[in-house]
Amino acid sequence: MKQCYWIWYPGDFELYYAMKQNFSRVERGYGWPAFWKSEGFRNRVVFRRTYVLEEETTFCVISRATGFCMVAEKNQEKNQEKNQDKNKDKKYPFGKTVTCGPGEISISIHAGCIETFPSIYIKGDMICSDSGWMAEDYASAPVSAGYCKYFTQSSQNPALWDYSEKTYQPIRVTDMGNGVLYEFETELTAVLQVTFHDGQCRPLTVFCGESREEALDPEHCYYSWQTDPETGKTPCSALRFAFIPDCTPDELEVCAIHQYVDIPVRAKFHCDDKLLNRIWSVAEHTFRLCSGIFFIDGVKRDKWIWSGDAYQSFFVNQYLMADPDINRRTLLALRGNDPMVTHINTILDYSLFWILGVKAHYDAYADTAFIRQVYPKMCSLMEFCEKQLDENGFLTGRKGDWVFIDWADFDREGPLCAEQMLYLACWEAMAQSAQILGEEAGCFEKRYETLKQNVQDFYWNEQQGAFIDSFVSGRQHVTRHANIFAVIFDIADERQKTAIVDHVLKNPQIPAITTPYFKFYEMDALARMGYLGEVLQQMKDYWGGMLERGAVTFWEEYDPQIPKEEQYDMYGDKFGKSLCHAWSASPIYLLAKYFVGLAVTGPVHGEYELNLYRDAFQYLDCTLPVGKRNVHISWDGNKIAVDDRK
Amino acid sequence: MKQCYWIWYPGDFELYYAMKQNFSRVERGYGWPAFWKSEGFRNRVVFRRTYVLEEETTFCVISRATGFCMVAEKNQEKNQEKNQDKNKDKKYPFGKTVTCGPGEISISIHAGCIETFPSIYIKGDMICSDSGWMAEDYASAPVSAGYCKYFTQSSQNPALWDYSEKTYQPIRVTDMGNGVLYEFETELTAVLQVTFHDGQCRPLTVFCGESREEALDPEHCYYSWQTDPETGKTPCSALRFAFIPDCTPDELEVCAIHQYVDIPVRAKFHCDDKLLNRIWSVAEHTFRLCSGIFFIDGVKRDKWIWSGDAYQSFFVNQYLMADPDINRRTLLALRGNDPMVTHINTILDYSLFWILGVKAHYDAYADTAFIRQVYPKMCSLMEFCEKQLDENGFLTGRKGDWVFIDWADFDREGPLCAEQMLYLACWEAMAQSAQILGEEAGCFEKRYETLKQNVQDFYWNEQQGAFIDSFVSGRQHVTRHANIFAVIFDIADERQKTAIVDHVLKNPQIPAITTPYFKFYEMDALARMGYLGEVLQQMKDYWGGMLERGAVTFWEEYDPQIPKEEQYDMYGDKFGKSLCHAWSASPIYLLAKYFVGLAVTGPVHGEYELNLYRDAFQYLDCTLPVGKRNVHISWDGNKIAVDDRK
Repeated sequence: MKQCYWIWYPGDFELYYAMKQNFSRVERGYGWPAFWKSEGFRNRVVFRRTYVLEEETTFCVISRATGFCMVAEKNQEKNQEKNQDKNKDKKYPFGKTVTCGPGEISISIHAGCIETFPSIYIKGDMICSDSGWMAEDYASAPVSAGYCKYFTQSSQNPALWDYSEKTYQPIRVTDMGNGVLYEFETELTAVLQVTFHDGQCRPLTVFCGESREEALDPEHCYYSWQTDPETGKTPCSALRFAFIPDCTPDELEVCAIHQYVDIPVRAKFHCDDKLLNRIWSVAEHTFRLCSGIFFIDGVKRDKWIWSGDAYQSFFVNQYLMADPDINRRTLLALRGNDPMVTHINTILDYSLFWILGVKAHYDAYADTAFIRQVYPKMCSLMEFCEKQLDENGFLTGRKGDWVFIDWADFDREGPLCAEQMLYLACWEAMAQSAQILGEEAGCFEKRYETLKQNVQDFYWNEQQGAFIDSFVSGRQHVTRHANIFAVIFDIADERQKTAIVDHVLKNPQIPAITTPYFKFYEMDALARMGYLGEVLQQMKDYWGGMLERGAVTFWEEYDPQIPKEEQYDMYGDKFGKSLCHAWSASPIYLLAKYFVGLAVTGPVHGEYELNLYRDAFQYLDCTLPVGKRNVHISWDGNKIAVDDRK
Repeated sequence: MKQCYWIWYPGDFELYYAMKQNFSRVERGYGWPAFWKSEGFRNRVVFRRTYVLEEETTFCVISRATGFCMVAEKNQEKNQEKNQDKNKDKKYPFGKTVTCGPGEISISIHAGCIETFPSIYIKGDMICSDSGWMAEDYASAPVSAGYCKYFTQSSQNPALWDYSEKTYQPIRVTDMGNGVLYEFETELTAVLQVTFHDGQCRPLTVFCGESREEALDPEHCYYSWQTDPETGKTPCSALRFAFIPDCTPDELEVCAIHQYVDIPVRAKFHCDDKLLNRIWSVAEHTFRLCSGIFFIDGVKRDKWIWSGDAYQSFFVNQYLMADPDINRRTLLALRGNDPMVTHINTILDYSLFWILGVKAHYDAYADTAFIRQVYPKMCSLMEFCEKQLDENGFLTGRKGDWVFIDWADFDREGPLCAEQMLYLACWEAMAQSAQILGEEAGCFEKRYETLKQNVQDFYWNEQQGAFIDSFVSGRQHVTRHANIFAVIFDIADERQKTAIVDHVLKNPQIPAITTPYFKFYEMDALARMGYLGEVLQQMKDYWGGMLERGAVTFWEEYDPQIPKEEQYDMYGDKFGKSLCHAWSASPIYLLAKYFVGLAVTGPVHGEYELNLYRDAFQYLDCTLPVGKRNVHISWDGNKIAVDDRK
């Protein structure tokens, strides 16, 4: 029997769970659904497939949708009378075993559902459900059905995700006098389970915290729950500490049931530097917590799928889990349906990062099928952007668009240089994708060349040795951002790159990057330019600094200047800072790519180049994924040994 | 306290219930969701409103969606300190009482929901929910919130319709030997309730039928249900007869709980002709059964919202219930969201009937607000059609479009004349709508004139005195359809109209109209041309013929030539014919408009013209709605008396 999958209209699954994800944020008692256009799934679809059967066979369609299965048989061999009857389309209810064949059998399965996306499961020896079925939505051309490797059993419901669970006992229980504080070994996304020793079940209130301080502050902590009177459980939320007022430790027991998507970690990192080992390990835990059905920004807040955040996660994923599925789910969730009418997450640059994310996904996994699936949406996104070009062909924000790039003091008059850098990189990605599919790439290359020339003409300032933010005001204002992109995306020529390093990256007069989000790109640019010593030191200072302050996961933001009492404050909110944030897991990418020095060159056959940065380690024992292969690298200070047979 | 309503993004309510309606068809055990694009509701919306309050007030937001209420106060009068705090946006969970004011208060209510459309209810003396709130969907400009007069209580759930119910006892119980047949006084849309005399509740199977024959044919009847073991109830379906096998009349009792939307009938018709009275009465019952949340085609089958069928219902509604709400719900459900990517119900002409339906709605109720609401969708529908014009500007079907008009033997080579007639009428409707809104109408008028000239040039055949089906084949084939439209929509000039009557409408060589659907238009054309005697006779023959065959509701189709044993057969299905079909209720429209002779000329002030066709009646006592007024007309064979004070 072949492997069966639940199937649906491709993308519907992701759009459904993206809504669940983006509507799951809770803050002090109220829900906070993401403030952008929610993309709905289809409600009425049809699945079709034609089989040529050597012999009679049976199958059965299982679905929670309303609908039917229609079978049309063409069989020349059976007797005339039977033939006439068989040639007629015949309809069957779901759940009924259908006998058909031999001969040519055309099957169409009609399904409608309002509350969730219609999905079907076909059980049979010859006829069963997989991506070989075509799906239609009565609006566009047939496409291959969508499926997910986690939904292969007829008893499953594709609208309910089966999370993996692991139970944690508290590592410390403290009687605070007015209640009990429970501490777990690390941050978790967990349901708390309260059991009374007397066997009774009374509802009580639990205050959760990413920090001890947060859990002990009933007014300002984000998550406080009433336990369910039947089960003693709370809803699932981010927590490391839990405070239960008005009780004593001997009255009750508390455990945390951690819920997660089990994506295996394929990388291992161990070197002589204990700090680097800890940074890797904490980054790994941070990243895994933020890698569920989708890449999300943080587990306490926002719990949303952000395109710019996800883009960085693709690079960490490549070196840690090398799981292409979560990339695909995230990219499909972000892009939504055609036509495109608003920018992804409302942010102009986040639309562009989606295109770059598709490229990053391809570069890591050579996933041509996915490029083929999303190529029409890549094109429609770029067409959407082209509606907002100015007279020089520069991309500008429309009214209501968020032109973000970073929280920084840009000269925002007129089109922003950093946006043009991303836009340029998108044309390059489009050309690459077109080539992969054998489509016409010349038009994209031409766009790239024209825009590049204009960027050079309008934004490069020879005196300052830098790209300026914007040319409209005449202020010639320089920040790091556009210059970092010019290095990363290879838009600056070699002479310009050197100037950028001297006059921008290493120039203390140019305001420093303040967010870990953009620190990722700054470190990447410095590393590409060969300043690995600087990168290593910054990594140890910045991520090491968080560890010194007791971090067990890496934070949304960290400023060593801020006094310890205010370290959880952000957005003017006492515990506003997310203490487990995906974009702070970048050391995995930096250590693997630039220090272990492994670059994936051929994902299909597991080809790579290795260029160990020997100065960083006296000793290294490390495994990194390359395609389906795991590459084991060891270094004893003298010799590199590589084992890539796994 | 002001009248509060549940509010939502306008159209979402209708799209949600339209899916419920279009997915409700059941046929011999399987669900048959409508085979066209289902238009989904929005999942994430925000409602906004600014109040200037004289004094402090409170309000509370009630919603099943996830979200919050944000309040921003600007108050110059309060002391500085309080002011600073108050000026900050403050978020509140749903269900919490908010105190605010005096001063300027800006409120935004954020709501997300996956399974159904997000809706909110705001309870307060000053601040409460009605159409004065603006709704946004993060994709387009703010619009006035949608509401429904049936949802005014905070305890209601806008996703659950409260149907009115009336219990019917069977009028006849027959022991068939192998079971019991229950007959009700007429056709109903009902839940059957089975009660065992011994007080026990056993599950059993009930076979339903619109006819006695259908209920007694367990193999071919459409609806057969297992009663719920707890309640003894079946799901709701169309039925007049119910057969329960393997039981005797003294074992159990059966009643039918009819479920309906209570739209009051405002018209009354009584005349000296008993047959006409019965035709009116049966048409009224037929029409009410097909008028629920929406106008549907039939109650047993398809139970779908069809644009062409609904268009005819608008005319009957005007003279029977004069309820603009069901028109609005039906029109919003049919048109769906922008952009338009497929034709309504997949049928080219049904898209055009939507435009004409908006015009019919305006002509009946002068509902300018609705024109304003749907005008952008009228424009986008016409723009969608313009993408499929041929070199002469004629509207053609794209691949996959259903170019229907009627089940008739048209010359279908090239663009069909009847489609151009409808398209012409649409340009006229567009010009009218633009004028109502003070928009530029000239462009539509120009389109009308150009297309009309082309239609005259390409389709009018002077020799035959008729418009031909199509000009491409050179066959010069004439059917009634385009010619009927040319009369109804005033496209033919007076000379042509006379020729059409002589050479087409009264010409037995031209194949007769075979469907009651198009009979509506043929009767209308004949009546407009003054042939009321013919119309009266045809009405008595056709609808009277159904009554003679025992109809208690009017049928989808009736052919007097068909033997009685086959009279329920249609689509090659023994009981395929719907015995309660909206489009067969047209005698109400014909009798009211042409025989009572009442034409609504000013819906706002209840203005009308009366032109009684005296030859039809010796006696008449009739009430017809005109705007908010009910006009009572009596005729004793000598004198007409009119009372329009009601």
